[in-house]
Amino acid sequence: MRSSGMFVVHLAAVAAVVGLYMLSEPVHGDEGMWLFNHPPRAYLQKQYGFAPDEAWLDHVRLASVRFNSGGSGSFVSPHGLVMTNHHVASDDLAKLSTDEKNYLRDGFHAKTRDQELPCKGLELNVLIGIQDVTAEVEKAVPPGTPPAEAFKLRQAKIAELEKAAANPEKNIRADVVTLYAGGQYHLYTFKKYTDIRLVFAPEKDAAFFGGDPDNFEYPRYCLDVAFLRVYENGKPINSEHYLKWSASGCQEGELVFVSGHPGRTNRGNIMAELKYLRDTGYPYLLQRLNRLEVLLSAWSARSERNAQRAEDELFSIQNSRKARLGGLAGLLDPKLMARKQAQEKRLRDYLTQLQTQMKPLPPWHAEAMQAFETIAKAEKVRAELIRDVTLLENAAGFYCTSFGIARTLVRAAEELPKPGGERLREFADARLPSLKFQLFSDEPIYEDLEIVKLTDGLTFLATSLGAEHELVQKVLAGKSPRERAYELISGTRVRDVAFRKKVFADIEEKAKAGQRVDLDSYNDPLLTLAQLVDPAARAVRKRFENEVEEPKRQAYAALAKARFAMDGDRVYPDATFTLRLAFGVVKGYKEDGRDVPPFTTFAGMFQRAAEQNNRPPFALPKRWLERKAALNLNTPFNFVCTADIIGGNSGSPVINKNAEVVGLIFDGNIQSLVLDFIYDDEQARAISVDSRAIVEALRKIYDAQELADEITGNRH
Amino acid sequence: MRSSGMFVVHLAAVAAVVGLYMLSEPVHGDEGMWLFNHPPRAYLQKQYGFAPDEAWLDHVRLASVRFNSGGSGSFVSPHGLVMTNHHVASDDLAKLSTDEKNYLRDGFHAKTRDQELPCKGLELNVLIGIQDVTAEVEKAVPPGTPPAEAFKLRQAKIAELEKAAANPEKNIRADVVTLYAGGQYHLYTFKKYTDIRLVFAPEKDAAFFGGDPDNFEYPRYCLDVAFLRVYENGKPINSEHYLKWSASGCQEGELVFVSGHPGRTNRGNIMAELKYLRDTGYPYLLQRLNRLEVLLSAWSARSERNAQRAEDELFSIQNSRKARLGGLAGLLDPKLMARKQAQEKRLRDYLTQLQTQMKPLPPWHAEAMQAFETIAKAEKVRAELIRDVTLLENAAGFYCTSFGIARTLVRAAEELPKPGGERLREFADARLPSLKFQLFSDEPIYEDLEIVKLTDGLTFLATSLGAEHELVQKVLAGKSPRERAYELISGTRVRDVAFRKKVFADIEEKAKAGQRVDLDSYNDPLLTLAQLVDPAARAVRKRFENEVEEPKRQAYAALAKARFAMDGDRVYPDATFTLRLAFGVVKGYKEDGRDVPPFTTFAGMFQRAAEQNNRPPFALPKRWLERKAALNLNTPFNFVCTADIIGGNSGSPVINKNAEVVGLIFDGNIQSLVLDFIYDDEQARAISVDSRAIVEALRKIYDAQELADEITGNRH
Repeated sequence: MRSSGMFVVHLAAVAAVVGLYMLSEPVHGDEGMWLFNHPPRAYLQKQYGFAPDEAWLDHVRLASVRFNSGGSGSFVSPHGLVMTNHHVASDDLAKLSTDEKNYLRDGFHAKTRDQELPCKGLELNVLIGIQDVTAEVEKAVPPGTPPAEAFKLRQAKIAELEKAAANPEKNIRADVVTLYAGGQYHLYTFKKYTDIRLVFAPEKDAAFFGGDPDNFEYPRYCLDVAFLRVYENGKPINSEHYLKWSASGCQEGELVFVSGHPGRTNRGNIMAELKYLRDTGYPYLLQRLNRLEVLLSAWSARSERNAQRAEDELFSIQNSRKARLGGLAGLLDPKLMARKQAQEKRLRDYLTQLQTQMKPLPPWHAEAMQAFETIAKAEKVRAELIRDVTLLENAAGFYCTSFGIARTLVRAAEELPKPGGERLREFADARLPSLKFQLFSDEPIYEDLEIVKLTDGLTFLATSLGAEHELVQKVLAGKSPRERAYELISGTRVRDVAFRKKVFADIEEKAKAGQRVDLDSYNDPLLTLAQLVDPAARAVRKRFENEVEEPKRQAYAALAKARFAMDGDRVYPDATFTLRLAFGVVKGYKEDGRDVPPFTTFAGMFQRAAEQNNRPPFALPKRWLERKAALNLNTPFNFVCTADIIGGNSGSPVINKNAEVVGLIFDGNIQSLVLDFIYDDEQARAISVDSRAIVEALRKIYDAQELADEITGNRH
Repeated sequence: MRSSGMFVVHLAAVAAVVGLYMLSEPVHGDEGMWLFNHPPRAYLQKQYGFAPDEAWLDHVRLASVRFNSGGSGSFVSPHGLVMTNHHVASDDLAKLSTDEKNYLRDGFHAKTRDQELPCKGLELNVLIGIQDVTAEVEKAVPPGTPPAEAFKLRQAKIAELEKAAANPEKNIRADVVTLYAGGQYHLYTFKKYTDIRLVFAPEKDAAFFGGDPDNFEYPRYCLDVAFLRVYENGKPINSEHYLKWSASGCQEGELVFVSGHPGRTNRGNIMAELKYLRDTGYPYLLQRLNRLEVLLSAWSARSERNAQRAEDELFSIQNSRKARLGGLAGLLDPKLMARKQAQEKRLRDYLTQLQTQMKPLPPWHAEAMQAFETIAKAEKVRAELIRDVTLLENAAGFYCTSFGIARTLVRAAEELPKPGGERLREFADARLPSLKFQLFSDEPIYEDLEIVKLTDGLTFLATSLGAEHELVQKVLAGKSPRERAYELISGTRVRDVAFRKKVFADIEEKAKAGQRVDLDSYNDPLLTLAQLVDPAARAVRKRFENEVEEPKRQAYAALAKARFAMDGDRVYPDATFTLRLAFGVVKGYKEDGRDVPPFTTFAGMFQRAAEQNNRPPFALPKRWLERKAALNLNTPFNFVCTADIIGGNSGSPVINKNAEVVGLIFDGNIQSLVLDFIYDDEQARAISVDSRAIVEALRKIYDAQELADEITGNRH
């Protein structure tokens, strides 16, 4: 704890010297995705007369659930019942679907526990412990260590800490999470659950009413909810910490909290990085998303069967496309960039002022002064590498599920014989169980879709690098992309789970003796290809890690320390798919001069459907049309609030001061897409399903009395 | 005629020297898009025992119609009745549609002439004369003239020839067309018609059954037909030359002809250009098509009204995307590229051999030897310029109809005061009437769609050049793309036809005195923007013309002369949207080992619809479902033949030896997309609507007895 302690002492000295910066507000209104071990109690107390205590925080944290597939959820009954979004569960709904039963489209409802359907490859985590290990991680890297070496040392220490804290037999998983862009490292321990069963999901047309067209828009009318149940040893778990259901929902102007896992924000980004994203990163990514959207849309349009097979992936691509377009619009907004520029100037001025006002300077000062240039340089390398990282390491040039599997096997064969600390991060001992769980998942992989995807991937590779590029020629082996994709996909055995298990077992067996399996012996064309590509992929990954990630990590860590010094505990770290607490008020907004009210109702949904002639994606499910009369049409359906959220928060419970469920986050409006870089409460809003709508729909549309009773507490 | 005469003499000498190359076949089977003044009579006579005579050729040519909007058609009655595809007419159907009447979707049928609907902005041309003006054009450019100067001189001569031949009062339009990539120049005179009225179109669901998913696929089931009528002075014209209707249709194995306007092929392209297209041109274009497809699809999905407004453009983008993807697949096929490589080697070997075997060498020899390098160099410049040409000159960075109008006005103001020969090509005197006709068209322009498009265009501009690029900053004027697009589109008056007419009249008025109108005086933000952008756009256009187009034109002309020398009259020029005659036989093909028969039937259409659960785009129109029983389900519906066609041939009549209509070209199969570069008759096929299906549907589905009678000749 030594260096961390020093750091705190130093901060106090700095704060005393440069009082000026303590006066201006580093956060804005209801801004913030706060750590559970560091909530903005003072602001909440002052602004809302309520600050959550430790018990409240522990209870909400332990009732919160992370979907490792991406997304959030919460326990809402003592019997392991988890609430999340339909769209968070959509991957699992698709995996459970067959040609005969399309649960993603038609919904699902288990009236009794024995009807609950085991999900395939889904892992849920509950955050049971947080420990600050910043000092230990920092101690492992002596000052002055060159970046590549520093990275290795830090990874080794992290792997060691994770391994010590994990307990695979008890399903305790441990992750060292990086916060404040490397300013802090916390060791998170999770209770891991892998027997998750589907309890209820509405029809996709109800959950995602308005589809991609209405995605990120408001007013909205979506029943974007799903219920799952967590089992252990064949029985529902006893979920002691669960969120109770509010009897009355929420009201306009009410303070609400959101507990969930915002995936990633870039609020600490300096201008050099924002400009990289604006001019290079986002445009490149959007090109690829456009490409994939067109590819999968065109394929889906050829038959119903195709549509079902690609639906989930297409859905996620369209969602990303819209989100990135919104982010890019923010980056291209000169007003927003001017605010970011002013924030950067404030930090630069602070550092300069420190230089003249304080001796000795804090140890991070020199690095922070240098950080702007370090990051600018790293962003240049990043722009240089984006193509090859995308094509090779991210495997966009080999786009298909089968290649991902082959790549994992190829890398496992190389990595597992090494000591844990020297492996690629994803092969560290603590991560192996999850990696294997995913690798051995029996989710269906469709040969025809794989061929279509790989044809496109190989075409992308050839046109990006040029058809005469040496690697392209080796990869295509004298064939056209279509012929080669057909040959590879129809020839590989990696779609067979038993084959994967066999190869992985062979690898582990040999690795114990420090030896490598000869993958050529399996005579599998895709394993051979993945081997062929791997040296180039690793080379570009290494350059990216050493010349982009690591220098930036260090530079941003120095800047984070400077920001700490400047703003003290009034700051929160950028989102990193770790558990956070956000808050805000239920509140409408103005758009083009007109008022957008905070709540919608069921009546509004029927009206929008009618205006759109019930054509997809505005077609209401049959059940909704038939049971309209039974519904209380004035039930609040969706609502907006000012809480600071981002992708990954999907499925987060919205709770009141009493930690009772009043809603379920499922989206942000189009104006909220700038939250990636900067908080705004003028128009940006989080969108939730109202808890009252969930109960009303369960009872009146779905005849799910027992489920409504379970969440509202009539049956415990 | 001097230089052309010399050329012919020389050819004979060359042919005598290098006999070898006369033996191998430069064309393959039914290959060729032949000139009407140069049909492959010998091959046809030998292969099929039938060669069309002059009268046959004149008759078919004069019965053929070019749609200047892109596409082909033919007169099929003596009363000016023109047959084409629904998709060729779709632009016009959309323009005639309103919020209440959607003719594109629902079809149209004028039972009587007074119900026929005048199209907006449609121009049809009939090719009434062909004159070889190669000698005159070549004479205008003295040997050794530098490229930029040569271009100018040639343009001036072409403008002069066109002006002399045109007769605007009699609606005679004249175009000098470039053939054999500059090897020949022919002066085409057209009779121009602008009063075109819609007679009949089926529902889009019948015309484009299977939509984009089935586009370029076979078997197919599309009634892709529309009928228009040509008027002059308020009355249907007397179309002396029209194609009669075959009583019995065509049979498998029968010889058929296609008379139409293939848009563009690249058969003469050398490897350097094919590689440019493969590695740069097609990938860049496809990126843009993907982008626009996603943009317009997303916007269309938000409401029925949006969908109708964007439908036609989206349709055309999806069509281009699929066509380019098919072409790219061909370019990435090593077998195909090897054939092209062999063709190039044959030409190079011929040139080398000539060098040792003949003295003196023909005048084009040195230039042809040099041509490969000249073109390779030009392709490098082309790759360098593609971004700026696309953004600025092609105005992708200002994507919307309004900008196109503003640009035309801005350029008219600058060009019209100049002498005709010095103007940008599109402002030459002979082209002005068509330019004005299009400029003054009152087709609807939707403000909301324009804002969406321009926002995307400005975003594309900013991300392509970088947001801090000087031009981008000037264009955006401190606003985000969305704000700026809103400001420009809501502020401009160019959507008002009267405003356009007023500005253009002012320009013409001043131009007469050799003066320029001050466009700033109109205080129109879009005119101001178009002026701001024009110098950069012109600069890149000039570089492209001088460093890419002109050197390539000269190099390809030299290669074309070499090919003439090598292959004599056994070659045909690449397609240039001029009238051509193709031929082939009605014939199925093999795919993945199974036989694809040449004909489909109505029964097959009903079956495919049923398999797809009648969901769009496989939903049959109500009328078809109701009248199924009345139809002879065994009527041949679509068929394939080996004729050599490409985009632009859509709407071409398929005729038998007696010049009777047996079908109507509307598509090629996916394997035909390589025809851009190389002819193939193994799998590549042209797809037609069978003439028997057209009559059967008119009578049994549409109650269009009078129209069926008119085309089958029962009522003249």
